[in-house]
Amino acid sequence: MTETPDIHDAASHLVITDPLDLLLRLIACPSVTPEEAGALALLEAELTGLGFSVTRLRFEGDGSYPVDNLFATRGQGSRRLLFAGHTDVVPPGDLAHWTTDPFTPRIADARIYGRGAADMKSGIAAFIAACAQIPANAGTIQLAITNDEEADAINGTEKLIRWMRANGHHFDFAIVGEPSSAETLGDSIKIGRRGSFSGKVTVTGMQGHVAYPHKATNPLPILAAAATALATQPLDNGSEHFPASNLELTSIDVGNTIANVIPASGSLRFNIRYNDSWTPETLTDWVHARLATLPVDGCTIAFEILGTPSRAFLSPLGADIDMLARTIADRTGKLPQYSTGGGTSDARFIAQYGPVVECGLVGTTMHKADEHISLSDLAGLTAIYSDFMKAFFTSARS
Amino acid sequence: MTETPDIHDAASHLVITDPLDLLLRLIACPSVTPEEAGALALLEAELTGLGFSVTRLRFEGDGSYPVDNLFATRGQGSRRLLFAGHTDVVPPGDLAHWTTDPFTPRIADARIYGRGAADMKSGIAAFIAACAQIPANAGTIQLAITNDEEADAINGTEKLIRWMRANGHHFDFAIVGEPSSAETLGDSIKIGRRGSFSGKVTVTGMQGHVAYPHKATNPLPILAAAATALATQPLDNGSEHFPASNLELTSIDVGNTIANVIPASGSLRFNIRYNDSWTPETLTDWVHARLATLPVDGCTIAFEILGTPSRAFLSPLGADIDMLARTIADRTGKLPQYSTGGGTSDARFIAQYGPVVECGLVGTTMHKADEHISLSDLAGLTAIYSDFMKAFFTSARS
Repeated sequence: MTETPDIHDAASHLVITDPLDLLLRLIACPSVTPEEAGALALLEAELTGLGFSVTRLRFEGDGSYPVDNLFATRGQGSRRLLFAGHTDVVPPGDLAHWTTDPFTPRIADARIYGRGAADMKSGIAAFIAACAQIPANAGTIQLAITNDEEADAINGTEKLIRWMRANGHHFDFAIVGEPSSAETLGDSIKIGRRGSFSGKVTVTGMQGHVAYPHKATNPLPILAAAATALATQPLDNGSEHFPASNLELTSIDVGNTIANVIPASGSLRFNIRYNDSWTPETLTDWVHARLATLPVDGCTIAFEILGTPSRAFLSPLGADIDMLARTIADRTGKLPQYSTGGGTSDARFIAQYGPVVECGLVGTTMHKADEHISLSDLAGLTAIYSDFMKAFFTSARS
Repeated sequence: MTETPDIHDAASHLVITDPLDLLLRLIACPSVTPEEAGALALLEAELTGLGFSVTRLRFEGDGSYPVDNLFATRGQGSRRLLFAGHTDVVPPGDLAHWTTDPFTPRIADARIYGRGAADMKSGIAAFIAACAQIPANAGTIQLAITNDEEADAINGTEKLIRWMRANGHHFDFAIVGEPSSAETLGDSIKIGRRGSFSGKVTVTGMQGHVAYPHKATNPLPILAAAATALATQPLDNGSEHFPASNLELTSIDVGNTIANVIPASGSLRFNIRYNDSWTPETLTDWVHARLATLPVDGCTIAFEILGTPSRAFLSPLGADIDMLARTIADRTGKLPQYSTGGGTSDARFIAQYGPVVECGLVGTTMHKADEHISLSDLAGLTAIYSDFMKAFFTSARS
């Protein structure tokens, strides 16, 4: 561990934040969703020291657990940048797979190891360290940090962004610090994300004895046909910035353990990752149309959407995204790819209010044992964030 | 309840057994498999009183619970009749569906109500009452009664019949007292039964994240195709005495509750009721052939037989079966149908050693709430059994 200089003197305007030191202290907080475990208090102290005005927000209800969130703002310039991220991490899983304790950060082989090292305490540490290099009067910098991105995401970023809007905190451009790089720092930024849509199809017949099938209606042949009807029909061939939408069956469940009983019903579950040519509404129509091709054979077929679908989004391509790409190329020698791959992220909530990109470290070890990033990438990302802010705040309103 | 006369005087040779009284006392024993709850002790006393030599046999092991069984024999004639049955009953289920307690026999509307009234304490009561009308020197009468027909059937009739063979107790003809009548007493006797074959197919792929399907192998489209391949192909068109064999899917199970995970594997279960054109061995080949039609797509497909298949059987049609049919027609005015329908019964174990038919009461209420039979049918079946024994023991060896 490095020594932490005393930078918490709010009166000082020459504070320095070392991203490595901040990252190590963040990893040491075992902030598995939804326990922030001191991570937000740490950020509050750090940001206050850098002149930010910090608001802690605890959201709760809507069928999920309470979540601690943090909003910070500094400056009043006409150009307003938002940085969004999360301090929560996924559980470490089987500790036997870790070389050392996941919440005791370890530096070895020019890497930093620990749960959250990639996803995404490093992004937060790099951005705050970059803020320390930007004069307070350069423009408006806002941070929206939640401690629930990895699980329900109900009392996190979505409500935090809505609260910001209700309280007059607008932004012109947003960066989410998720690990967006594929193999090397800055090789990819994400300008959109596919949507996610989960559903359940239940087929109900009539229970009976296998020896007397004429007195029963077995729902399982229809259920199998429904699975095939959903899984074998392509949704589309992809769009300009997105790959083809895709449906995966995730479960089929009946739960009948009695060998001589025809069950009354069975259900299947599926998840669709879809591009910007679909909405949850058009997908619902598609599922109904697929199910309408099935023979009914005396059964009833019911469809329900599971949870709240995530909408697909594509940020409008504009000057700020291009400026971020050039900033990255100046550091790495190569323009980043504009990607829309991967799972969902909290960027989908932010996209409802303005342009947003995901720009962060290499994510290959995220959610795995011995999660790590390289020391040089952490310094590189800090430089990219800092370079971008300098350019962003001196550019004309786009 | 009727009063029970004192018929347990073993010295007397003029004993009378009232089938109704015996049935009421049997129903009062809550002999849910495998607890005989006094039912076998009751039979032992009754049969001893009728001059039978009774052996109680407790079988255990082979992966099932211990079961009490009873063997009784009387006489030494050259013609040897076996009566087989069971004292165990299925659980009453939700008591709210019963008008009165299932183990407190009730007579109303010329019917006897209670669990086991139809299946098959009435068959036992009628046969023992019929034995009381047959002179002890008429011929050899044997009873093989188990208390586990309704569940595992591992320590019941199969071992009892094997024990009989090992101890020199042969038979020329066997009657199982199961409720074989469809709508009216004697309208049907069962001369064979379909076999039962249960199997499980497991498809294994590779787990992964739904957002990255190219890094996973989803087994569920193959599992759905396997279900369709098994459920939609007819096995045969029936044989001379049997309907078509039939496969029913009984369950499909994955158990994945996480919406963004492609599961590693899933399985389906099925049961085949099959006629005398198949054996468990040829069915195994058929299943493998059906599964071989599937695309594999990187998955592995495994098949296993569940439990021990029941073989199909068809009793050789002969003079004794015809004599039983004529005996029934003399009482009912109509020859019974020779049936092979319905589920399996313990007759399948007996059929390995000699001709066997199932001949008993109307079974429409068996296994249901308010199970019952009619008082007149109980008397009628007693007369049929008695008439048949008189004819059987005076007929030439067939």
